[in-house]
Amino acid sequence: MKHQVNKLVFKRLGINTQHEHFVYMREDCQVCISEGFEALTRIRVANGKKSIVASLNVVRSQILKAGEISLSESAMHALRISEGENITVSHLQPIDSLSYVRAKIFGNKLTPGQFREIIGDIVNGNYSNIHLSAFMTACAGNRMQIDEIVSLTEAMINTGRRMQWPGDCIVDKHCIGGLPGNRTTPIIVSIVSALGLTMPKTSSRAITSPAGTADTMEVMAPVVLTMQQIKKVVEKEGGCIAWGGAALLSPADDILIKVEKALDIDSEGQLIASVLSKKVSAGSGYVIIDMPVGETAKLRSIEAANLLKVQMEKVAHAIGLKLKVIITDGSQPVGRGIGPALEARDVLAVLKNAPDAPAELRERALLLAGELLELSGKVEPGEGNDEARKVLDSGKAYEKFLAICKAQGGFVEPKTAGYRHDIKAECAGVVTKVDNRLLSKVAKLAGAPDDKASGVDFMAPIGSKVEQGQTLLVVHAESKGELEYALEYLSSQKKIIEIT
Amino acid sequence: MKHQVNKLVFKRLGINTQHEHFVYMREDCQVCISEGFEALTRIRVANGKKSIVASLNVVRSQILKAGEISLSESAMHALRISEGENITVSHLQPIDSLSYVRAKIFGNKLTPGQFREIIGDIVNGNYSNIHLSAFMTACAGNRMQIDEIVSLTEAMINTGRRMQWPGDCIVDKHCIGGLPGNRTTPIIVSIVSALGLTMPKTSSRAITSPAGTADTMEVMAPVVLTMQQIKKVVEKEGGCIAWGGAALLSPADDILIKVEKALDIDSEGQLIASVLSKKVSAGSGYVIIDMPVGETAKLRSIEAANLLKVQMEKVAHAIGLKLKVIITDGSQPVGRGIGPALEARDVLAVLKNAPDAPAELRERALLLAGELLELSGKVEPGEGNDEARKVLDSGKAYEKFLAICKAQGGFVEPKTAGYRHDIKAECAGVVTKVDNRLLSKVAKLAGAPDDKASGVDFMAPIGSKVEQGQTLLVVHAESKGELEYALEYLSSQKKIIEIT
Repeated sequence: MKHQVNKLVFKRLGINTQHEHFVYMREDCQVCISEGFEALTRIRVANGKKSIVASLNVVRSQILKAGEISLSESAMHALRISEGENITVSHLQPIDSLSYVRAKIFGNKLTPGQFREIIGDIVNGNYSNIHLSAFMTACAGNRMQIDEIVSLTEAMINTGRRMQWPGDCIVDKHCIGGLPGNRTTPIIVSIVSALGLTMPKTSSRAITSPAGTADTMEVMAPVVLTMQQIKKVVEKEGGCIAWGGAALLSPADDILIKVEKALDIDSEGQLIASVLSKKVSAGSGYVIIDMPVGETAKLRSIEAANLLKVQMEKVAHAIGLKLKVIITDGSQPVGRGIGPALEARDVLAVLKNAPDAPAELRERALLLAGELLELSGKVEPGEGNDEARKVLDSGKAYEKFLAICKAQGGFVEPKTAGYRHDIKAECAGVVTKVDNRLLSKVAKLAGAPDDKASGVDFMAPIGSKVEQGQTLLVVHAESKGELEYALEYLSSQKKIIEIT
Repeated sequence: MKHQVNKLVFKRLGINTQHEHFVYMREDCQVCISEGFEALTRIRVANGKKSIVASLNVVRSQILKAGEISLSESAMHALRISEGENITVSHLQPIDSLSYVRAKIFGNKLTPGQFREIIGDIVNGNYSNIHLSAFMTACAGNRMQIDEIVSLTEAMINTGRRMQWPGDCIVDKHCIGGLPGNRTTPIIVSIVSALGLTMPKTSSRAITSPAGTADTMEVMAPVVLTMQQIKKVVEKEGGCIAWGGAALLSPADDILIKVEKALDIDSEGQLIASVLSKKVSAGSGYVIIDMPVGETAKLRSIEAANLLKVQMEKVAHAIGLKLKVIITDGSQPVGRGIGPALEARDVLAVLKNAPDAPAELRERALLLAGELLELSGKVEPGEGNDEARKVLDSGKAYEKFLAICKAQGGFVEPKTAGYRHDIKAECAGVVTKVDNRLLSKVAKLAGAPDDKASGVDFMAPIGSKVEQGQTLLVVHAESKGELEYALEYLSSQKKIIEIT
């Protein structure tokens, strides 16, 4: 409980600890001695201009000399400090908003102001991973009421950047729980921006899946754009398909998502706040949500999907966002390719109206584009699908896509993998079931998404009659080792495609 | 999703990250590249003999050279590795028990086997702080049923060391939520071991309070003893009062308590499992729980105390521990001194039957010692208090205490502080209320528990009539600065002692 202030010289050790700020101090310094080594201590670190909170790690080696102190990379950036500058450390006064987290742990309802304070502290790095995890857990398992989700969403919107676009009809789409190959986004952006809507789409890379929209788009055009570049593309073409990682649209969500991934949980409330806050921050007024339902999709039953749909619509209404949820079939992959380049190939086939384009992918994209056209008021109810179809059939969507690629830095053809292997049916019959998760895993073992051309082609949709020896899957890999690794896993898994 | 195995050379950086294992790798090594920098990655680290799980921190400086890898101190000890030895790293397969944690987050009940697996993984360091915090949070707020608490307690007992003692009547006591000055333990140990019971008491140091039993005892005798030394003391004297930190009685609990402190929460289920697992592991068969209730104690109402009492008794019964909960008055400090040496002085006064010994402390110790004597079957129901009083009055308890001190390494008189200041009543009246938390804070500001002689003497128990100018508190400090700091705080707090 001593309140001394210690002045130390910053030495950069270059340790990246992610969002949690760490401070490294020698075990013989006063703060270490008085705080003790046993506790998970958080201390206040300041440099005259700014102050942050960091978790204490105690160093007993010569990487720090007497009088030196170090910070993790995130903490260094937050303090905007350079090597050789002075740092003072002091004891941390309790963080008020943690008492709201505790209240939530014990089942209390939080107010909008309390959510604002919590999210503000999260964005400022005042929470350790322990606090973040407790907050996530306390809010999971249906422990948030609708108005709490609204408060959380608004708090997230208010702590991030908010984008502005020319025009007043800014649209977006989002898919809940990726389905392998469900790469409708580039097609939808091309269709609706060809029709005059503004769709400034920023997408994520794969985190646990074989490809994110940004990964797929990247095999055809640059996606790592500055905000300035994105603005230019959208002003010129009415749409873009860029990586959203640098946009800082909802910094609290960026942190919470990492913790959620580490826990491997998805809380409905957090999910809704995450998706909707990002859409509003991105400047969208009209949003279509694709919600695939299937035994091996994220949403496993229509009931679960409807529950989420109702909650999501309520929250959207409360924050003034026009939103429509479309529940779709999530029993199997959409299209054929699973993996960045294979999906890009399918997207191009649909846009080019190629005769072998996957019909499922085409129809799914038209459905969602049509709904978006209607939701935005661009076309009359009931006419969206036809309008979308016309612009796709006419080749104008493809032209728009190429124009967007050009504006983003230039179109390139997706490359193909050097190693391929066909998986054939061991018996004749009808395909009755497909395991999305196992298919994704095979694609990842083959190298996706890091190896852009790697992945799986899925050739046997549910309901198809197959002969013995007919190709069910084609595994693509950029190296022989990875091909073998994927095939080895495949041979141990009999239930990926069920034929009866 | 690549599965390469990387061989690297261990370099010690000496970073102490507490129980969470960290691995430090250069950003240009293969694992870092393939796992990505964005995720909170956990990887498997092995050295041929053993393997552990560690959180990845990416290093972009020359503290690690190409081909080198480092581990946090806990990880290094867990792997039993020395500088220059080889380490292999590989991708982490999912940890099964985390799916049970997720089930608990979503409100499901866990089985004994599931708790066993969770606790086993925690002890093995397989959980990051994120996982630990989620588990704690998911179990807090009355989300555990009695049989789940039983399972958790048994799982904790089974993963730790279990102590054996001579004799079959091993007793212990525990106080829920420290009350300032409530230092009955050394007195109780002396009384009951003088009467032939075995009371191998291991205590903690203060974490957030001005003194723990180990801190107080340490001003009179050594408390940092090896298990071997503790055994010898207990064999010779039938009792000890040692520091329990090195005993590894319930390693899972040692980790969970740190997370709980960081969150500043107390979950009933965890509390019960924590206390009871440690008692069983320490070899006790009969345990008295002191449960002080008061507005500024941990338990704020009799109702809350009774709820906890019932749950605790149920769990104790299920695991075969004889336990009795005594609900006591927690409205004010027990005794006079608050701080290690001041409390030691009071303990000695009671043991010596000094005329100015604090009557409250004496009576509280006799109450609990008497209950323990009865619970153990050593004396008939109704006779415990008298038996305890006899042995205390006779001086035999004091003799026993000195003998224990001698066995632990020798008795020394507690020292006194160089700086003192009396706080006097500003008006006459009757003391109606005392704030335990603020009193503790004053003692801590004065330097306790690090400065052993610092603290507060509390001179105005509830109900006492005081004159204007009468001394209410005496602040003791080892330095002038700390005395002033405590006094400054005191002058800003009018509500520590209410007089009406």
